[in-house]
Amino acid sequence: MIIQKTENSRLPDFDPNNFSFGNTFIDHMVICEYENGKWGDVKLVPYGPIPFTPAMMGVNYGQACFEGMKAYKDKDGQVFLFRPEKNFERINKSAKRLAMPEVTEEMFLDGLKALVDIDRNWIPQGEGMSLYIRPLIFATEEALKARVANKYMFAIVATPAKSYYSEPVSVKISDHYSRAANGGVGSAKAAGNYAASFYPTQLAIEEGYEQIIWTDDATHEYFEESGTMNVFVRINDTIYTPPTSEKILDGVTRDSFIQLAKKRGIEVKIEPVAVKTVIEAQKNGTLKEVWGVGTAVVTTVFQALGYQGEKLELPKLSDEESFAAMLKKDLTDLQNNLSEDPFGWRVVVEKDVLETV
Amino acid sequence: MIIQKTENSRLPDFDPNNFSFGNTFIDHMVICEYENGKWGDVKLVPYGPIPFTPAMMGVNYGQACFEGMKAYKDKDGQVFLFRPEKNFERINKSAKRLAMPEVTEEMFLDGLKALVDIDRNWIPQGEGMSLYIRPLIFATEEALKARVANKYMFAIVATPAKSYYSEPVSVKISDHYSRAANGGVGSAKAAGNYAASFYPTQLAIEEGYEQIIWTDDATHEYFEESGTMNVFVRINDTIYTPPTSEKILDGVTRDSFIQLAKKRGIEVKIEPVAVKTVIEAQKNGTLKEVWGVGTAVVTTVFQALGYQGEKLELPKLSDEESFAAMLKKDLTDLQNNLSEDPFGWRVVVEKDVLETV
Repeated sequence: MIIQKTENSRLPDFDPNNFSFGNTFIDHMVICEYENGKWGDVKLVPYGPIPFTPAMMGVNYGQACFEGMKAYKDKDGQVFLFRPEKNFERINKSAKRLAMPEVTEEMFLDGLKALVDIDRNWIPQGEGMSLYIRPLIFATEEALKARVANKYMFAIVATPAKSYYSEPVSVKISDHYSRAANGGVGSAKAAGNYAASFYPTQLAIEEGYEQIIWTDDATHEYFEESGTMNVFVRINDTIYTPPTSEKILDGVTRDSFIQLAKKRGIEVKIEPVAVKTVIEAQKNGTLKEVWGVGTAVVTTVFQALGYQGEKLELPKLSDEESFAAMLKKDLTDLQNNLSEDPFGWRVVVEKDVLETV
Repeated sequence: MIIQKTENSRLPDFDPNNFSFGNTFIDHMVICEYENGKWGDVKLVPYGPIPFTPAMMGVNYGQACFEGMKAYKDKDGQVFLFRPEKNFERINKSAKRLAMPEVTEEMFLDGLKALVDIDRNWIPQGEGMSLYIRPLIFATEEALKARVANKYMFAIVATPAKSYYSEPVSVKISDHYSRAANGGVGSAKAAGNYAASFYPTQLAIEEGYEQIIWTDDATHEYFEESGTMNVFVRINDTIYTPPTSEKILDGVTRDSFIQLAKKRGIEVKIEPVAVKTVIEAQKNGTLKEVWGVGTAVVTTVFQALGYQGEKLELPKLSDEESFAAMLKKDLTDLQNNLSEDPFGWRVVVEKDVLETV
């Protein structure tokens, strides 16, 4: 790994109690370039601009995929990643589906640890605080040809993330727009999937909702995801979530929720979730909770479902009654080293790993 | 318009008889930046890099769309655009679907004319030669938040394009992969649509095909597009092409072919094209031609269709017998000012328009 430390750290100007999530960047970033059929040296360099022309293939033909993950600092200042091998596996699954070169475990995991270590002082401490980390791969070749690119960049950038309480939101069950096709790229964390979701979401917002529950594009009869999250439904005391597929992202938070629920003895059914079943359960009072899960917010609880012009209210549960709240606490306690880790999900980021590289 | 002419023209090194299409760029480009809810000045500047970090939203969340169009130089050196207003309309349709700001007619058409004019000496002359022009819009804001960006760039870049004969190719009728979902972004020239098509195309190539005929994702029973082109089928002497929809791009070449066919008195039916109908016509000998159309290659003729493991051969027609060849000549003659233009499709690029801006 080639290391070029910044000479102008922005850390003295960073106020961990008052910063903007998403556009406050830590001092460094990892970059690695792909050319002539192979990845070059991994470089840890000051965060900053790289020159690209508007002919860059990434913004012309959309070969671009990413991961979202976090690093957590416990009360003793120890820093942890959470199941980073899952993100490593998934970025390569995304890359493969987009005909992009896969990255090596060294590039991904060592790059990640080196970056988090060198900028560990940027990680805010305290409940729900974290460092949000964005590994990504995108095509950098300059060419106006609709074909697989020959040059790529793998990069890791990161921004401090605040604890934020996510208000319960109203979601519209989609009856026209969709985020994924059969035989498409729905299960990849492909850049294009996000852009495709913005306009339908804007329309839903105009109708008084905050997000969309995506349904299958052919019939709109089955739940797929909600917003940019995986979706869970609780009917009586059983949790349902759709199986992952080529249309549904294999979310790390989704998988963690399933395992944490099972550990608590909660019945979890991984099976297609029919809109009709959910609506009937709402009508007969057995629908207790519907929520989305993802790395950024962990959990967003839904207070109402929009369906065929009706806004169907969901029960307001206390934190003691809510499986969503319970599992969120189980997960964040584990992530923040406030509880045991029977799964081996936490990965310590050693100090000064760079000296040993 | 702000104009900054290059002081280091690369034109003396450009050999119009020996250059690489797609990565030979003309001296200038047009750029215009969007910020605080509005577009800034249109700038005509030397082609070259612009600094972006890997947090650029365009490569993270895929808000990026483009157009493909050409400028043609006739034997007298006059330069023409072809139906540029169609591309202007379509880029805004794409932008809207991706929740991006629309561009103004001035930015698009005046920018286009100014760029083509200033670099008119880059346009190669002769049969099939042209300048391939790429207008695009992409999100430039640096932020790790899955939301609509606040900053964008509109750009126009261009590369000289060669006359090239496109060999007939074998295409596989897709029975698993698809390029568009109902309620998705198939009709937009969205960057992500292209990336999504590369891997299935690679698999088809491994099976001995060059391209894919995309079919509807739910049943794979209807033709949608072929490769990155619209698709035409000729059974006996009638031409069929699927209607445009939210899944099928409203191609300029497609529309031009339809109008040119009608002008010749050829029957054109714009209706869903069932795979079954095409296969039956191949079996009973009434299937005469299948071809794709698009700006880059104009026409690609198919010599065989892959379906359920079989490679179904298509007749080899002479240029006199082939509707595809006939209509391609009609179109390119019109584009190159070798024939009348009853439709008013040619748009002259005046010399030294910049002096009047």
